[in-house]
Amino acid sequence: MSFFTEAGSEAAVLARLAECRNPRLTQVMTSAVHHLHAFVKEVEPSMEEWMQAIQFLTRTGQICDDKRQEWILLSDTLGVSMLVETINHRATAGATEQTVLGPFHVTGAPVLPLGSNICRDGKGAPCVVRGRVLGVDGQPIAGALLDVWQTSEDGFYDIQQPGIQPEGNLRGRFHSAADGSYWFVTVKPCSYPIPTDGPVGALLAGMGRHPYRPAHIHLIASAEGFEPVTTHIFVKGDPYLESDAVFGVKESLIREFVEVADPAAAAPWGVTAPFWTTEFDVRLKPAAAPAS
Amino acid sequence: MSFFTEAGSEAAVLARLAECRNPRLTQVMTSAVHHLHAFVKEVEPSMEEWMQAIQFLTRTGQICDDKRQEWILLSDTLGVSMLVETINHRATAGATEQTVLGPFHVTGAPVLPLGSNICRDGKGAPCVVRGRVLGVDGQPIAGALLDVWQTSEDGFYDIQQPGIQPEGNLRGRFHSAADGSYWFVTVKPCSYPIPTDGPVGALLAGMGRHPYRPAHIHLIASAEGFEPVTTHIFVKGDPYLESDAVFGVKESLIREFVEVADPAAAAPWGVTAPFWTTEFDVRLKPAAAPAS
Repeated sequence: MSFFTEAGSEAAVLARLAECRNPRLTQVMTSAVHHLHAFVKEVEPSMEEWMQAIQFLTRTGQICDDKRQEWILLSDTLGVSMLVETINHRATAGATEQTVLGPFHVTGAPVLPLGSNICRDGKGAPCVVRGRVLGVDGQPIAGALLDVWQTSEDGFYDIQQPGIQPEGNLRGRFHSAADGSYWFVTVKPCSYPIPTDGPVGALLAGMGRHPYRPAHIHLIASAEGFEPVTTHIFVKGDPYLESDAVFGVKESLIREFVEVADPAAAAPWGVTAPFWTTEFDVRLKPAAAPAS
Repeated sequence: MSFFTEAGSEAAVLARLAECRNPRLTQVMTSAVHHLHAFVKEVEPSMEEWMQAIQFLTRTGQICDDKRQEWILLSDTLGVSMLVETINHRATAGATEQTVLGPFHVTGAPVLPLGSNICRDGKGAPCVVRGRVLGVDGQPIAGALLDVWQTSEDGFYDIQQPGIQPEGNLRGRFHSAADGSYWFVTVKPCSYPIPTDGPVGALLAGMGRHPYRPAHIHLIASAEGFEPVTTHIFVKGDPYLESDAVFGVKESLIREFVEVADPAAAAPWGVTAPFWTTEFDVRLKPAAAPAS
């Protein structure tokens, strides 16, 4: 008979996978059990530390609701989300790089005419965003869909502030023009802290880490026959670019935001000077399996 | 400037520990991040699998309440609880081995006279448990406290069946006599499944594992000047001894349960034949820091 021992702990658990009929689950659990037991043997938690861990993991689930996902936040702040994203979207030369979706995307934002202003409460510094949607070969993609969203000037998404921000504030979808170009008006994004009032915030504080994300505009670009990309436009010069709490920054996604003081330049965009402007071209790679 | 890359993912996260003022947390998180990133790189989860994992971890917290602790169950079924127990209570030659506490202990069970029957509803096969509490040197320990609890004949603890079992059924505390001996009456324990209606049950089923624990009586023995021990008495011959869903079995804790048909032997215990009997001596090691 063979029983559990400290030295044989991993083997004892792995032996129980003998009847697993799902080869992928066997692979995942074999790796998970290996690393879990190796971790415990390295750190040798006391019984009190083990119970602290149980309580941390429990609270991380219990604070989740239909608007808050603390487990994604934990995955984000430990670099796991970015690693999974990166593995799943290994760069094709010339294509726009992927970054995290984050927890604040809302499906079904209104499709608006090019040039529309997605700021519904008039707060914040106006900002014109424009660029082109192209294939990796440089050919323009007409009718590509751009789904954009961002925080208010106070650093909150509309769904974090119901009753304070208008519903759908700073969200919209746009179709690229015949030459692949797009343009819309928003406000200049600002850096903001991820939620710190839960277990993940306490862990960050314990590790001596700040909770800030550098200013960014979220963007999902998609077009028939191309692989969609989920990405951000980051603001050059932001103090948190190198220490993003969720590790989302890729150098290729940082853009200069230029302040324009000329009232004549503002008029065509329907904004008043001074205003900001930035340019961001999106390059999509062909879909792995072309639409039939 | 340095940004997140697949190859450098672990280093990017570990670099953020530079400001951590808690050396133990630095040690724990360094190991956790290392194994977490190594796990992701080994299994390369798809975005869908990552989201399945997020949902599994979230549900595991959300099903917890004041009577149910699914995270402890997950720790138990992956052998982590037993590993932590074993690390924290490395055997001293001659001392009773430790095993898992489990989620069904209730503090403050009534202290009863030796020989009391802890079965409050008369259901199940009567069973006399007796033994001695000794030091590792074999000297009897008088006045040691034994806290015992177990399932009913149907495989449920009283707190799992409020309104069905009497409150406090099959729980009690006893003090050892002057010669270290103890004896009490209960029912013969039976093997039972851990709760399978939550995420952990689904995971076990996915892995092709049964959810059964071999029959056992829980026991915490403590005495002034000695290190307390949390352990089980297992029933020899149980079909699940080698495949305990929580890896709790240690060979030294298995005992023969003997059926006695003689009515004359039953009378002194206040039970009717046939009844069962078993013997279990507890050996405690001296406390690390003796009481002053």
